[in-house]
Amino acid sequence: MADRRELLVDATPLPEDLDPRLRRQLTFVIEIDRLKTVLRQSPLVSAERRENDAEHSWHLAMMVVLLAEYADEPIDVGHTVQLVLVHDLVEVYAGDTPLYDVAGGQDQLERERLAADELFSLLPDDQAVRLWALWDEFEERTTPEARFAKAMDRLQPLLLNWMARGGTWRTPGVTADDVRQRKAVIGDASTQLWEAGRQLIDEGEARGWARPAGESR
Amino acid sequence: MADRRELLVDATPLPEDLDPRLRRQLTFVIEIDRLKTVLRQSPLVSAERRENDAEHSWHLAMMVVLLAEYADEPIDVGHTVQLVLVHDLVEVYAGDTPLYDVAGGQDQLERERLAADELFSLLPDDQAVRLWALWDEFEERTTPEARFAKAMDRLQPLLLNWMARGGTWRTPGVTADDVRQRKAVIGDASTQLWEAGRQLIDEGEARGWARPAGESR
Repeated sequence: MADRRELLVDATPLPEDLDPRLRRQLTFVIEIDRLKTVLRQSPLVSAERRENDAEHSWHLAMMVVLLAEYADEPIDVGHTVQLVLVHDLVEVYAGDTPLYDVAGGQDQLERERLAADELFSLLPDDQAVRLWALWDEFEERTTPEARFAKAMDRLQPLLLNWMARGGTWRTPGVTADDVRQRKAVIGDASTQLWEAGRQLIDEGEARGWARPAGESR
Repeated sequence: MADRRELLVDATPLPEDLDPRLRRQLTFVIEIDRLKTVLRQSPLVSAERRENDAEHSWHLAMMVVLLAEYADEPIDVGHTVQLVLVHDLVEVYAGDTPLYDVAGGQDQLERERLAADELFSLLPDDQAVRLWALWDEFEERTTPEARFAKAMDRLQPLLLNWMARGGTWRTPGVTADDVRQRKAVIGDASTQLWEAGRQLIDEGEARGWARPAGESR
């Protein structure tokens, strides 16, 4: 491929005589190191900087392990963890699209599908197919595991915003109603977690950390 | 407790009327945000900085998903992922102990057990017991899953060091033989991955990225 993107591994290629299948897998493992440099909007609780996608994915995986009991339908924890591990991988090429970025949201799926094509094709075919399946499952949310994974993806930044006393809730033009609407998907997986999440948003609104409806700036 | 450590959540306490069990779990979820600030020695491939524990744990989890086929004994992928997710949690209080830090390694287990006691006790008892069990399993390496998790923990920085053309292999006093000795545990889980790992170390030594034996500085 004449116009192949430069891969991280190109800087220090792996030995030519490694087993070819393993060599492709390690190339992928090295390439996804990029996820550690893709910044999200959410502020960390523990330091004065924004969170990156790798940290976010780890945090979601831990939340699946700890909060699975709140799923309204039984879920397979190991499978759900794999969904959250994989769900943001495509952002190594597509970048993060902030939740409240309406313009960026328009072509997000198209950009991410192109990125998935490019990234997953680094792997042996059987594994590329498997990552596509995990990513599609997360996006389509037709399984209880995917719904729960999505709920974690919405609940985690909600907790970070609570700790930041606003965080991205303070995005210009965004009201507490917008936040509730974007987060309501938590309720598709867990009645109790959405109840708690909504309580944090309501309380944040009452404390002035999110704008009341009708007061959009 | 009069001398309780200040928790991250203390800065912005969660509402008092949240369900008490969920409140403890969310307190823990917020507290482990600290893992994103615990720096390891390994340099990232994708940026000019060191890796943190949360990024490292995510990377290991991805490697389990992608490389499980190389385990000499069959492993449960979902369980192995949970082992790597949990294995470094205690470092939120105990800090990272570099692999080639012999002095720090002496009391490492004791420091980490105290940290586990403090951290895991934030959770409801049943979950504290569960995290202790996962952490002990990882440390004891008596299951195929724990051996594979440990292998990932040794292979991942090996890849980062390869990409850095030395990285922590250049630690003063460390030779290529020391590196091979510390990494040989990969072979307890996977003959093929240890073969590949050793090949990278041998090649690194040949290229002058690690010191030959007998030439310790």
